[in-house]
Amino acid sequence: MNRHMVAFVCGRILLLLSALLLPSLIVALIYGEGWTGAWPFLVTMLIAAVPGLALSLRRPASTRIYSREGFVIVALSWFAFSLIGALPFLFSGAITCPIDAFFEASSGFTTTGASIITNVEALPHSILFWRSFTHLIGGMGVLVFALAVLPSIESDDVSIMQAEVPGPVFGKLRARLSHTARLLYLIYLAMTAVLVVFLCLGGMPLFDALVHSFGTAGTGGFGIKNNSVAFYNSSYIDYCLAIGMFLFGVNFNLYYLLLYRRGREVLRNEELRWYLGIALAAIVAISLDLIPHYTSATRLIRDVVFSVSSVMTTTGFAIVDFATWPLFSRLILLLLMFVGAMAGSTAGGLKVSRVAIYAKTFLQELRLQVSPNRRLPVRFEGRPLGSHLLTRVGRYLFLYIGVFTTLLIITSFDAPTFLSAFSAVAATFNNIGPGLDVVGPAGSYAGFNRLTTLTLAVGMIMGRLEIIPVLVLLAPRSWRRG
Amino acid sequence: MNRHMVAFVCGRILLLLSALLLPSLIVALIYGEGWTGAWPFLVTMLIAAVPGLALSLRRPASTRIYSREGFVIVALSWFAFSLIGALPFLFSGAITCPIDAFFEASSGFTTTGASIITNVEALPHSILFWRSFTHLIGGMGVLVFALAVLPSIESDDVSIMQAEVPGPVFGKLRARLSHTARLLYLIYLAMTAVLVVFLCLGGMPLFDALVHSFGTAGTGGFGIKNNSVAFYNSSYIDYCLAIGMFLFGVNFNLYYLLLYRRGREVLRNEELRWYLGIALAAIVAISLDLIPHYTSATRLIRDVVFSVSSVMTTTGFAIVDFATWPLFSRLILLLLMFVGAMAGSTAGGLKVSRVAIYAKTFLQELRLQVSPNRRLPVRFEGRPLGSHLLTRVGRYLFLYIGVFTTLLIITSFDAPTFLSAFSAVAATFNNIGPGLDVVGPAGSYAGFNRLTTLTLAVGMIMGRLEIIPVLVLLAPRSWRRG
Repeated sequence: MNRHMVAFVCGRILLLLSALLLPSLIVALIYGEGWTGAWPFLVTMLIAAVPGLALSLRRPASTRIYSREGFVIVALSWFAFSLIGALPFLFSGAITCPIDAFFEASSGFTTTGASIITNVEALPHSILFWRSFTHLIGGMGVLVFALAVLPSIESDDVSIMQAEVPGPVFGKLRARLSHTARLLYLIYLAMTAVLVVFLCLGGMPLFDALVHSFGTAGTGGFGIKNNSVAFYNSSYIDYCLAIGMFLFGVNFNLYYLLLYRRGREVLRNEELRWYLGIALAAIVAISLDLIPHYTSATRLIRDVVFSVSSVMTTTGFAIVDFATWPLFSRLILLLLMFVGAMAGSTAGGLKVSRVAIYAKTFLQELRLQVSPNRRLPVRFEGRPLGSHLLTRVGRYLFLYIGVFTTLLIITSFDAPTFLSAFSAVAATFNNIGPGLDVVGPAGSYAGFNRLTTLTLAVGMIMGRLEIIPVLVLLAPRSWRRG
Repeated sequence: MNRHMVAFVCGRILLLLSALLLPSLIVALIYGEGWTGAWPFLVTMLIAAVPGLALSLRRPASTRIYSREGFVIVALSWFAFSLIGALPFLFSGAITCPIDAFFEASSGFTTTGASIITNVEALPHSILFWRSFTHLIGGMGVLVFALAVLPSIESDDVSIMQAEVPGPVFGKLRARLSHTARLLYLIYLAMTAVLVVFLCLGGMPLFDALVHSFGTAGTGGFGIKNNSVAFYNSSYIDYCLAIGMFLFGVNFNLYYLLLYRRGREVLRNEELRWYLGIALAAIVAISLDLIPHYTSATRLIRDVVFSVSSVMTTTGFAIVDFATWPLFSRLILLLLMFVGAMAGSTAGGLKVSRVAIYAKTFLQELRLQVSPNRRLPVRFEGRPLGSHLLTRVGRYLFLYIGVFTTLLIITSFDAPTFLSAFSAVAATFNNIGPGLDVVGPAGSYAGFNRLTTLTLAVGMIMGRLEIIPVLVLLAPRSWRRG
């Protein structure tokens, strides 16, 4: 492995983190928090900048890196961001235990939104801003990662994940960024800005609008009120956020196509239809199940649309405590946690395209058993899927189940009920945030012990990076010389 | 489809069922139950025999059948056995609702052992005998099915499941039976007889010994006491049954090899090692978890060994209410429910060989990500596995997850808690019997409504036949002419 190049790139990324702490420092000054509010960020900036400078001063002789280095860089950056991003929480006294602070920061950067803080309203503005800003940063990170590093789910291209890339990954990333990804960032930031405006129009204060837009853009879900979005008690704001979350769960490549007036391709997009179809089916099913529990139809629709959009896009905002819903509705939400939103968005979970391919393979398997002579290939997005791709997508399920089970076993030592353990792992590994039972929207992750907290934090990063980069980082073989 | 041949074979099978009702009739007479005890069996024998004779009188012109017909016959027989086998429960008044009786009978024939009867001790001997005798019949059915109809998991042979067989399946089954399967039946019955002797030596009455041996042989688990095996309160009996269950979870081909003094091959068998390894690991893990809850080490070991053997072999006898164990121990049991015992045994679940292949694929996938150039094939039983077989084993997981999720959604309407629903589906679909929470060893399935009961009964048959035959039976295409 080209360790010099890995160190160099990581150095650059640390410098970036140092710069990204600046807005929170400014917020501290604006809200008159003075030295008490400012120093945690100032010191953290230095802590990120010093090794960042040291590592990135000298450009390595060989800049040639392969897939393995790419994965190690991605995994290292997420861990480094979470470790250093946890420092402001500790320095400010908002969180006292380092593991809890690491949990909160990785929950932010992985755009999970699971929190161990029981009283967020007591926190200063600068800390609340930083907490939600990590969602915005994480979301941007995921976009580069999903569009430039991860192999495309829909096509059978040989990508970084599959084969050694001839050129350096960093160069490739930069080259790709300069073409399309920079435009995607502009779309991402523009959509966030539009959401801020819409929320302000609904009477939300600017600070709150910013923070909630960050949470929506990254599909993260950290709130600044103890009862999340329910605090605002506004039908307009609820629908603004529900639509916003849903739109940030769409593959960003589709927005790129829209910009180039290729709307027809967007309408033909099969994953988009599955996404809409699953969301609608879930809304109808849960609404029917909840009818006996509601007196107002508008309130029912509002709660269900918001919750489905929030859970399916893996955001995790709440306007109602869905952990108190009947079992059928909770089960549908639990299944949505695994589905997630579209590939190429900031959402977590298995992704709609994978689930669609699993469902189609399932149906084809049924057909094949009934008529063994009619072997039709599984088709997705209008193309037949190659066996190589099907194997890859299928094997991801093995990895997913394997890691999920491991996390579940560790969590089971500490959770009070099966549903708490199961939904805590589902909600963190799929980057949603709130789960069901004790970790439901009205609960928090504060009740877990340190081992569980750490496990779930690592689980969030594994889920965010689709497992493999973290395994490559942890494999001793990756670190052997030669 | 060759419907004449399907009808002919099903007719023969109904005649067989009619004959199999005779022992229970004799039990009714022995225990002096008189006409009240005898007529339910007599009438059921007639009900099975009349259509059986009508269908099998005339041998069809063409006896040529293919895989589709084979699957339809297997699925039809299990449904027919469960429907007709339910009649003695209804006629005798032991169960009043027809759906409940169907549930109880399919639970018997699928060797599940889930019961809707809350007070078994009130039942007459003939009904108790019939209830457990269905386990013995079901176990024998599974052995033919697993050894002659299902494709071998370990080898890549083209089998009935994969391609159309040149000869008629019925002929093929008979041919195979005359060679090895008949010997396997002898082994099965001899082992059952040995267990009866051992149990009697421990002071168990003959009737009880017979019934418990049937339940062990079929890995079924119906008991005749309200608190299952705990009633006998004998360390000797508990260990007899624990070892018995474990031995009936072994692939019967291995006993065949032992008879021919090919013990070396048995020792080299990889699936056997996995089976032993998983059982031991589970025993150690649960024992460590339970230490604070026990004062006596011998009692702890006895409870854990018995429960692990009972759950892993999908039998479901109980000497302790494991639904009250801490979450970690319950989770390990829940995972064992999915693993099941060895392929080619009477046990249910995914089977150890499939789980071993999934685990190895998972590990190979990890290795591949770290060193993409070292592509090693997945090996099992000393041979590299072909991609065709891996695809087939992998796709079974899709089918399994798809059916499991569907059953879970239907059950969720009716279950009080998530764990009740999840473990009820796991315990029936994997043919174990008792689950956790309300369906735990101390509870029963009596609390579910009729839709759920029917769903779980169909789920038991689907799980028992490894899904595909039931789907072929239900597919409209199977029934089209031509």
